[in-house]
Amino acid sequence: MMTDADGTTITHARGIAVAEFETRLERAQAGMAAQKLDALVVTTPQNIRYFTGFATTFWESPTRPWFVILPRNGVPIAVIPEIGADGMAMTWVQDIRTWRAPQPEDDGVSLLTSVLSSTSGTGGRIGWEMGRESVIRMPISDFDRLRGLATGLEFVDGAPLIWDLRMVKSESEIERIRTACTIACDAFDALPAHMASGQTEYEAACAYRTLLAKQGADSVPFLSVCSGEAGYSQIIVGPTERKFSTGDVLFMDVGATWDGYFCDFDRNFSFGEPNDDVKRAHETLWQSTEAGIAAVRPGANTDDLFHAMAKVIDTGGYAAPTTGRLGHGLGLHLTEPPSHMPGDGTVITENMVLTIEPGLEYAPGKMLVHEEDIVVRVDGAELLTRRASREMVVIA
Amino acid sequence: MMTDADGTTITHARGIAVAEFETRLERAQAGMAAQKLDALVVTTPQNIRYFTGFATTFWESPTRPWFVILPRNGVPIAVIPEIGADGMAMTWVQDIRTWRAPQPEDDGVSLLTSVLSSTSGTGGRIGWEMGRESVIRMPISDFDRLRGLATGLEFVDGAPLIWDLRMVKSESEIERIRTACTIACDAFDALPAHMASGQTEYEAACAYRTLLAKQGADSVPFLSVCSGEAGYSQIIVGPTERKFSTGDVLFMDVGATWDGYFCDFDRNFSFGEPNDDVKRAHETLWQSTEAGIAAVRPGANTDDLFHAMAKVIDTGGYAAPTTGRLGHGLGLHLTEPPSHMPGDGTVITENMVLTIEPGLEYAPGKMLVHEEDIVVRVDGAELLTRRASREMVVIA
Repeated sequence: MMTDADGTTITHARGIAVAEFETRLERAQAGMAAQKLDALVVTTPQNIRYFTGFATTFWESPTRPWFVILPRNGVPIAVIPEIGADGMAMTWVQDIRTWRAPQPEDDGVSLLTSVLSSTSGTGGRIGWEMGRESVIRMPISDFDRLRGLATGLEFVDGAPLIWDLRMVKSESEIERIRTACTIACDAFDALPAHMASGQTEYEAACAYRTLLAKQGADSVPFLSVCSGEAGYSQIIVGPTERKFSTGDVLFMDVGATWDGYFCDFDRNFSFGEPNDDVKRAHETLWQSTEAGIAAVRPGANTDDLFHAMAKVIDTGGYAAPTTGRLGHGLGLHLTEPPSHMPGDGTVITENMVLTIEPGLEYAPGKMLVHEEDIVVRVDGAELLTRRASREMVVIA
Repeated sequence: MMTDADGTTITHARGIAVAEFETRLERAQAGMAAQKLDALVVTTPQNIRYFTGFATTFWESPTRPWFVILPRNGVPIAVIPEIGADGMAMTWVQDIRTWRAPQPEDDGVSLLTSVLSSTSGTGGRIGWEMGRESVIRMPISDFDRLRGLATGLEFVDGAPLIWDLRMVKSESEIERIRTACTIACDAFDALPAHMASGQTEYEAACAYRTLLAKQGADSVPFLSVCSGEAGYSQIIVGPTERKFSTGDVLFMDVGATWDGYFCDFDRNFSFGEPNDDVKRAHETLWQSTEAGIAAVRPGANTDDLFHAMAKVIDTGGYAAPTTGRLGHGLGLHLTEPPSHMPGDGTVITENMVLTIEPGLEYAPGKMLVHEEDIVVRVDGAELLTRRASREMVVIA
């Protein structure tokens, strides 16, 4: 562990202060008490980082499972492969139990069972990453085996508790998302100088990635680059080798990270002046985004946000997109709960970080989508991205 | 779909030919027949890409599950969120069933149950990503619900079949891994000009990422940057803000992708001339890598590879590292089966792509690790990386 300029102990110089991890644990333990959980176990990169500060890209190797136990009382226990012991010791977690992995016939399952049984006792209720927008990072056959072995324990859904904690951000989390947004905005501002008609989507992506890396993005896990004549038909597959020509609209949606936290927003570019249909659709979308931003305030809910944006699209005479929602949370994940859609009903509270993401289809196969990132403050939305210009950026 | 220069139909210009996806399906169906499976279902980015060619970074959003069914007879069926329909239609998969997602109360589960029941009949055995080095990309509570709903179906481990198929690469897969290796080698060659004593690990990582992006890497999901005086104590956490000084050894391990496929290898740098202990350890490690490469031939097994490398380390008087194995497969994942370790026992066959990754600890907390990527040919290993120099690269 290290100490930063004003004497706060931090895990890395770019990391989060230990005091904040203590607060996160306390909030988790209060939730466990309320939900009668004896422990919460996390296995995934984002949740392990949230509770420990453990920062690695080694997650890309699916060979070895990792477990962090948060007991209802006491400190976190890491049950991890031996290869990770020295790295985990760089965080505030000091109770580290290891096994020599990989060991396919028993990769941590019996060790975890014995640690869980001794910390949570017979009849213990263990919260696990089971439900909404959650996955577990271990073979399902091993999780089934664990549920069979640990017969004294009950495994229940810990996802509602985890999302309750993660949906509301601390100032240090907000600063990290703002940094990611600033890096990606700066790179977007520099991009038109590197683009031209005749270039491919792939070449534009390469130029943008180079600018992002140079500006200091830690990674670019998400980058969607789609283009088409006067609009695009979908927003998730691309870049491809498609060549830009005059009259095309280019969509770029970026999820870059800084110190673990994502931005997630998009920009649209026009090759040459957009035609009147595109201009009118873009103006409607820009106004829909304004309406979404204006609707943000503590106490409103996600249905309200959806309807504020959808009303502008409807009034303009346009069809809704196939995305199923008009924005969502973000943070350690590119997308997190809540979802701005009818029926989600999540009450917006201070310090949630959200995307405002309306879209429309103005003709068959001609889609336009906008997206900005905001943080909810007591008096409304504060932009984390620099607002897109009202008129589409034109590439000569 | 598009057609490339010699008339072969391809999914994208950078994509894999449709004929190869047909071959992959045929091999999978032969395996299903042998293992008495009625269908194989895949939910994860790499397996969906392997069977369909579907290329997206949208996987970063954990909100919506995706399913691709490979029936024992017939063509693949995609059961996916509506947002993905147009993108999936760009691949060779044409049977696409969608639901309007997100829909937390029933995100694809009942649709999937009905499609599976109608394609696989009562009493069907469904292979699923359940076992070794596999995860499922959907909430476990939804998978439990699926197993409860689809009472006529038996869900069994499809991972052995999937890894059997994926462990042996086609020439087009090998070419993609070679391209990723070449990009990362070129970027390593250019890197020393951007490094100096006094710089931080983070700054070196930023310089390397910028070079990788400029050379055309699609993404850099894995980049480990660790340094220490005359060696490092661990190889998975970093970069940090640690500053380089004379006498340091810097370790950089990279997993960059091109068209979906990974490289995975490392390089070591010395700030100033390495001391004699480092030189001797490095020479031993270089020889151990040579021994590993020389041991590769069809018919040898992973235990043989391990022992060839370990013998050189032992003879040098050094301790084994805590990594648990001395290399592994790679491809659509950074690490794939097999593992070069005692007891793995996988027989090496032509066109497997493997890392050769010996390590040693020459003093407490002083580790060195080497890694190269090779493809198994009829007469032995063919290097995909440019072999590291015998003497460590010195940064002045």
